[in-house]
Amino acid sequence: MMKAANITWHAAAVTKEERRQRFGHGSCVLWFTGLSGAGKSTIANALSQRLFRANIHEYVLDGDNIRHGLNKDLGFSAGDRTENIRRIGEVAKLFVDSGTIVLAAFISPFAQDRNRVRKLFAEGEFIEVYVKCPIAECERRDPKGLYKKARNGDIKNFTGIDSPYEPPENPEITIDTGLFSIEECVEQIIGFLQEKDVVLKEVPAFDR
Amino acid sequence: MMKAANITWHAAAVTKEERRQRFGHGSCVLWFTGLSGAGKSTIANALSQRLFRANIHEYVLDGDNIRHGLNKDLGFSAGDRTENIRRIGEVAKLFVDSGTIVLAAFISPFAQDRNRVRKLFAEGEFIEVYVKCPIAECERRDPKGLYKKARNGDIKNFTGIDSPYEPPENPEITIDTGLFSIEECVEQIIGFLQEKDVVLKEVPAFDR
Repeated sequence: MMKAANITWHAAAVTKEERRQRFGHGSCVLWFTGLSGAGKSTIANALSQRLFRANIHEYVLDGDNIRHGLNKDLGFSAGDRTENIRRIGEVAKLFVDSGTIVLAAFISPFAQDRNRVRKLFAEGEFIEVYVKCPIAECERRDPKGLYKKARNGDIKNFTGIDSPYEPPENPEITIDTGLFSIEECVEQIIGFLQEKDVVLKEVPAFDR
Repeated sequence: MMKAANITWHAAAVTKEERRQRFGHGSCVLWFTGLSGAGKSTIANALSQRLFRANIHEYVLDGDNIRHGLNKDLGFSAGDRTENIRRIGEVAKLFVDSGTIVLAAFISPFAQDRNRVRKLFAEGEFIEVYVKCPIAECERRDPKGLYKKARNGDIKNFTGIDSPYEPPENPEITIDTGLFSIEECVEQIIGFLQEKDVVLKEVPAFDR
């Protein structure tokens, strides 16, 4: 029996590779970037459902679970936006280490902030998904009424109105929600994950 | 087929309850608190290995993956220590939401900081594990040479030397690493998880 005094007994942490082997799929972050209303969270949640039903470990990080929790001390100044994305990147890294496919859905308008997150990860673990949609269409959808408020001046520094959005230069995936349906967009991303051997098995479509 | 314009299609997030049902076990945070050298990380990693081998989703948060990542901007002032624990609590909450049993191993010397974390969770999800060990024994082990540095004045505000440690008043579990072996401590925690129906199945001991 191990004696208490011998506390230096080596209890190695379970590794990322051990978890990937056990789960039977890779782990990575799908980083959804795009304008408000482009469909980032919608696509992320639809994909999350598909992966979950295929027994793949997935988790969505988005404004709903980050803004009122981990990052509730942060506002919308330039510095706070950068810190917001930095922290999300670090949390995504922990989930990737735990063997999870993370779906991070944040406007993340600045290329530099996104590229800093990319550098936290090993080659192939950071997959930038540009959720492309013309701003006119985003504004037409305006699911949260934010464009209206921004146009009225009730919200300042709103991305696309009075704050810039820098599209990714070399995203791993571009999906165009102005042209394709949610299912088609989800299918494109699953195709990418299969092509890169992140997900080997079939990912069945919904029954409905 | 779903049309792009219909972006308001409801893509509900996968819920914590759905994940728990799929995985076949509950999710919670085991919050290990105690002096440096008491054995928090060692016990957490040994338990993590046991749970992993039993096909239970687990993840360890400790200084190794937090201090140089998410919380690398924080020092050891009173305010930074509080913010350190707050962020770890919020990250643990995300993992619990993802269906994982989180093992958080941090000195977390202040009762108020720990109690704030407790309040983030639903009843039964926050399990405080007091890793008890006399300071003389911790100092004798001194696995990282930190007590020696603190005694020499090379480290300031070291818990137990020139900064207080507030033991939990009502921890869910107390393990005494001065009296019991690592395996015995791990067994006590597994017993608690089984008693509370977090883990229903057998958790086999190591083959070795």
